[in-house]
Amino acid sequence: MKTYLDCIPCFFKQALFAARAAIDDEKKIKEVLDRVGTLVSQIPLDSSPPETGRVVYRTVRQVTGIDDPFASLKAESIKKALALYPSLNEMVEISGNPLETAVRLAVAGNIIDFGANPDFQLEQGIEETIRKEPGTNHYEAFKNKLEGACEILYLGDNAGETVFDRLLIETMAKPVTFAVRDRPVINDATVEDAMKSGLDEVAELISSGCDAPGVILNRCSEEFLDHYERADLIISKGQGNYETLSSEQRPIFYLLKAKCHVIARDLGVEQGDTVIKYARL
Amino acid sequence: MKTYLDCIPCFFKQALFAARAAIDDEKKIKEVLDRVGTLVSQIPLDSSPPETGRVVYRTVRQVTGIDDPFASLKAESIKKALALYPSLNEMVEISGNPLETAVRLAVAGNIIDFGANPDFQLEQGIEETIRKEPGTNHYEAFKNKLEGACEILYLGDNAGETVFDRLLIETMAKPVTFAVRDRPVINDATVEDAMKSGLDEVAELISSGCDAPGVILNRCSEEFLDHYERADLIISKGQGNYETLSSEQRPIFYLLKAKCHVIARDLGVEQGDTVIKYARL
Repeated sequence: MKTYLDCIPCFFKQALFAARAAIDDEKKIKEVLDRVGTLVSQIPLDSSPPETGRVVYRTVRQVTGIDDPFASLKAESIKKALALYPSLNEMVEISGNPLETAVRLAVAGNIIDFGANPDFQLEQGIEETIRKEPGTNHYEAFKNKLEGACEILYLGDNAGETVFDRLLIETMAKPVTFAVRDRPVINDATVEDAMKSGLDEVAELISSGCDAPGVILNRCSEEFLDHYERADLIISKGQGNYETLSSEQRPIFYLLKAKCHVIARDLGVEQGDTVIKYARL
Repeated sequence: MKTYLDCIPCFFKQALFAARAAIDDEKKIKEVLDRVGTLVSQIPLDSSPPETGRVVYRTVRQVTGIDDPFASLKAESIKKALALYPSLNEMVEISGNPLETAVRLAVAGNIIDFGANPDFQLEQGIEETIRKEPGTNHYEAFKNKLEGACEILYLGDNAGETVFDRLLIETMAKPVTFAVRDRPVINDATVEDAMKSGLDEVAELISSGCDAPGVILNRCSEEFLDHYERADLIISKGQGNYETLSSEQRPIFYLLKAKCHVIARDLGVEQGDTVIKYARL
């Protein structure tokens, strides 16, 4: 997906939120915004938003000196999601369609996001995601594709959401490789966060090799690209992964909440909608 | 009022909205944002937001070549407000307290704003402003001050809102000098807009001499400052005028809707609240 002009004010909003999560020093935070200001003219609109996001969050780290501003928010999100896990698991078990319920819950977990929409309400969002018809619903295609899939690559997004991903992986009952960011960016999951979520027990964990809040293929590791090319089913969670891969022709299912109006418009859905979208349909 | 860090993303949002109102050329609009980006490091947080707003909107004019991007929106707002005028006038006439109703309606008119909150719903906002208790309500002080006032200076804000101001001026039945911006900025009223609203029939119209979306005293004309110093009652409409005058010790009544969370916090009210605030209380 290209960078829309509306993404530019949002980069400043995100830089401000991240800088405030890192430090409590108005002058330093202003310096972050000053430096993001100088970046604007260097943003090509034909690049994807996570390419700029990568530089913005790098700037936050450099100016504040804090490597992982969201460390405690991530830990909290994982703790909260783990506390919800038994009831989520029960929802899947008693469901007439456990796989569909697990897919919907995996999308619901995407509500946890300190980039696009930090004011999220998790429990309310779960209930709504289960109840409301998705804006795009290629679930049947997903179910069919999954049946024949041998090599599944799962592209993670946020810490905490990872617990919801674990439930979907358990329900799919297939071998899965779970890819995370190479280092902390926003509240996206790293290997450490994935392990805290119990993902190492149900999947092979790898890093994408990329420190952007998305999967920028030409910045990914050989190991990741090897998985990416081999996979016969790719599950891509969240906005950032969609933004970086939306023009790819691989067998990708995008599972996400359309949290901002720019993405919603790009996807042809309403803001807030659940999206289960197959790249090849 | 100082510039808060949260104002910075908002400057970009406003620049984008104004540039889009001016032209339909993505490259040029991006150039506006690029130039606003270079301004960020020059924003002193101890200056008021309209001081930066002035430069932002000047940038929009320079890059797009359009002197008044909001000309047609302003004309529409005035037309809409004039169509409402008879029913507003009736609300005042049948009210048990015509002055208070006129004050509340004057605040309701402040909803018309293509800077802070372009997605406004005017009719709904009027109803709510009349019904709901203001977050700050110094109406009694206003009524008392008005009784003895001989020289009233009324600082206008948005085009269209000016029709609501006219109704308050008619209800006050005192000689009033009505000050407008020196040239178009956002949808703020100029002399031309004030005349289209019928204000020349009920008040003496003057320009503030300043092209900011607020009253920056050291940029105002001698004529304006003379009125400002002489006035024994000053009615200041809207956020921009509050932001530039909030530390002044003159007999100012701020009438506004607290449309953004930054102003609301500064005023100690909830976002969306009606504010009738006396500077000396």
